[in-house]
Amino acid sequence: MFGLFRKKIGDMLPGRVLTEREDLFCYGFDASSTEDIPSAVVMPVNTQEVSEIAAFAFNHRIPLIPRGAGTGMTGGAVPLRDTVVLSLEGMNRIIDIDEKNMLAVVEPGVINYHLQEKLEEKGLFYPPDPASMKFCTLGGNVAENAGGPRAIKYGVTRDYVLGLEAVLPDGRVVPAGGKTYKGVVGYDLTRLLVGSEGTLAIITKIFLKFLPMPAETATLLCAFSEIDAAAQAVNRITSSAIIPRTLEFMDRESTLAVENYSHCGLPLDAGALLLIEVDGSHAAVSDDADRIASICTALGAHVRVADDIYSKQQLWDARRAVSPALYRIRPTKINEDIVVPRGRIPEMLRALRAISERYNLTIASFGHAGDGNIHVNIMTDRNDKDEYRRARRAVRDIFEAAISLEGTISGEHGVGLTKKEYVDMELSDVSIELMKGIKNVFDPRGILNPRKMFPDSGD
Amino acid sequence: MFGLFRKKIGDMLPGRVLTEREDLFCYGFDASSTEDIPSAVVMPVNTQEVSEIAAFAFNHRIPLIPRGAGTGMTGGAVPLRDTVVLSLEGMNRIIDIDEKNMLAVVEPGVINYHLQEKLEEKGLFYPPDPASMKFCTLGGNVAENAGGPRAIKYGVTRDYVLGLEAVLPDGRVVPAGGKTYKGVVGYDLTRLLVGSEGTLAIITKIFLKFLPMPAETATLLCAFSEIDAAAQAVNRITSSAIIPRTLEFMDRESTLAVENYSHCGLPLDAGALLLIEVDGSHAAVSDDADRIASICTALGAHVRVADDIYSKQQLWDARRAVSPALYRIRPTKINEDIVVPRGRIPEMLRALRAISERYNLTIASFGHAGDGNIHVNIMTDRNDKDEYRRARRAVRDIFEAAISLEGTISGEHGVGLTKKEYVDMELSDVSIELMKGIKNVFDPRGILNPRKMFPDSGD
Repeated sequence: MFGLFRKKIGDMLPGRVLTEREDLFCYGFDASSTEDIPSAVVMPVNTQEVSEIAAFAFNHRIPLIPRGAGTGMTGGAVPLRDTVVLSLEGMNRIIDIDEKNMLAVVEPGVINYHLQEKLEEKGLFYPPDPASMKFCTLGGNVAENAGGPRAIKYGVTRDYVLGLEAVLPDGRVVPAGGKTYKGVVGYDLTRLLVGSEGTLAIITKIFLKFLPMPAETATLLCAFSEIDAAAQAVNRITSSAIIPRTLEFMDRESTLAVENYSHCGLPLDAGALLLIEVDGSHAAVSDDADRIASICTALGAHVRVADDIYSKQQLWDARRAVSPALYRIRPTKINEDIVVPRGRIPEMLRALRAISERYNLTIASFGHAGDGNIHVNIMTDRNDKDEYRRARRAVRDIFEAAISLEGTISGEHGVGLTKKEYVDMELSDVSIELMKGIKNVFDPRGILNPRKMFPDSGD
Repeated sequence: MFGLFRKKIGDMLPGRVLTEREDLFCYGFDASSTEDIPSAVVMPVNTQEVSEIAAFAFNHRIPLIPRGAGTGMTGGAVPLRDTVVLSLEGMNRIIDIDEKNMLAVVEPGVINYHLQEKLEEKGLFYPPDPASMKFCTLGGNVAENAGGPRAIKYGVTRDYVLGLEAVLPDGRVVPAGGKTYKGVVGYDLTRLLVGSEGTLAIITKIFLKFLPMPAETATLLCAFSEIDAAAQAVNRITSSAIIPRTLEFMDRESTLAVENYSHCGLPLDAGALLLIEVDGSHAAVSDDADRIASICTALGAHVRVADDIYSKQQLWDARRAVSPALYRIRPTKINEDIVVPRGRIPEMLRALRAISERYNLTIASFGHAGDGNIHVNIMTDRNDKDEYRRARRAVRDIFEAAISLEGTISGEHGVGLTKKEYVDMELSDVSIELMKGIKNVFDPRGILNPRKMFPDSGD
């Protein structure tokens, strides 16, 4: 079966079917995990080729794993044994930047940041900014419904996708949505495909809305001695009429880790930091920044305003350094991205503290406080069997706490492989049954990204 | 079958199953059309009752038509012969306004404007504002993915629905989404149900996000002598860094109709009007209003700024009077809500002019220029057979023009009954097949709002 694939598709796309073991290794992982290496990697460059590959795979029941840059956090693009990776990295053209209609047409392999740069040159703005934006592809962003710090004001990838072109597992091309800002004809296939983690169809073209670049931004770093005061500030800011463009949170562990790692001058005595950015017209920005500074100062915070590009960059570099810095604490990081309703952040942080003590583990939290999305990092060592077992048990407790606070086990990362065993903690049997029914409509032979998203028992 | 329904469900819900002909008549129409009167109307007041009604209907294969206020524009809530209307008007509680988490929990029968008023008292803001907002229900808004003038800045109903509770046609309750601003676990059932026009499940509870009320608004009426200058102004405004909260357009016919109807002082010599509103902090609003005034003045417009609540209200009353005023021209109004990419509005307006001349019909256009959504009103008389036939042909030409300009045949109104014969002009066979597959997953017996949304041939 795979021999035939290599031969037939290899003849069709010479040099674009990889079968060497060292090549296959490069497609065997994502940012979360490794499962197995694929039987082949195929690299189409246009929709027609994707369609032909899918039709062949469908006829021969060969499982396909669509893949962008492999920066996902839950194994969505990770191949299993006896699968073919369909890499979309060769479909990386920005087809059109249509300023008149404020929309871009891109292929799925375009890097998020490349689009942002191209737009920025023209004074335009594509808000979704996942941490991996310099590497991750827009196709992957759509498949995972990627978020980022700016989601609090600007929403997530879903909010920018006007339409898609996708290839069904049997090779047929399906258009969804289009170039209009509004449209209500038929069921919303566009938003059904967004976040479907490559299990329903292979995205081959994306219509993305963009915005004018805000005239100005201001960046504030607010250091609180107590974590509760920071949580209170989040509530006061968001219930004032200000909608900041980012409202990022770092707990004490994260702050210490970053400062020890990059010596960027973060206050070592802070119980929690908020990194807040506002944008808009000159008048609005200075007004909002002043009000935020007053709110935080009134709660005892030390507020530092970044006046120039360099100091803004420095603050954001510190925020982005959290993830690498944490590895200084322990070699293995289990990173979960729970969300709770914003007002319940303090309760969630208390629950995390209790779990950390219960299992004697270091847990560092940071993330998007503005929308209740906390990145919870259990720092452990995969080789320390006892500790790692405790860490795995802590994950379940964290999810239970998030769900009991009316939250979710994933705000941005998706389910993929790593969270599929927990999905039924959150979703009802009826919901899972409906989702499997939908999967079956799109992929009756179950060849597209199989064994992802749903608990194994039901496969 | 219907006898049994009346008996069994009538016993269960005494006084809440209507069967008298004069009662049934009241549930036989919406804002667009009449089809037939139902066999019964049932009025549940909680999810449990909806579930029991659905289970009974499922077992006896009785078609159910979910209904809010019946203000829809395309017959989505209009009953066919031998159906039961499931009216959700009794489920009208605002269950919670959760200021801490900036979300509301409501039943589907809550009137849009009631929620807006409740929120306004607390300095909060629910943006979606369909024209019928003083009467229409939030459940209907969700089912149709209702928009409104403020969509250009604030998006449509979909953008505010965090989660839903719905009852499947077999009576099972399905939760979708929840109380978090982000969430990516499983397929997006929430947004699949939004805009599904009551054909997939009966919505029984809605979790809606809301915003802080903007501190200030400014309203400008800009009168242009030529329609092309107005279209140019729309482009210049939207490609500047200003995102107005409304950017409404009225053509000459609409302006004349309103002025003759309500004598509110609109300029009779204008070729087109733009009604523009900006909101935000005091500083931002006055800044944006000044810049918009300059843009429009530079294009030869006469700009009038509404300084106080009274004059703002007057301008909006004029805008809202367009629809009733048009009936002064001709007794029958065929109202279509096409959308084109914003930059193509001038082409669409030219196409409308040509169609108006081709069929010798009065066509008045107004609507949401900011997002390319134009309400096209063919003014005719249902009793003038020849003219009405020409009007029906003009509808198809208008849809063809919109689609050829990469637009859609419906931006806000949905498909329902009145547009189902045109759906395959826009959607591909593959898309329709997938949608029918999804319908079948949710409603395998086809009892929920049957014969809506899809072309008849395929039923």
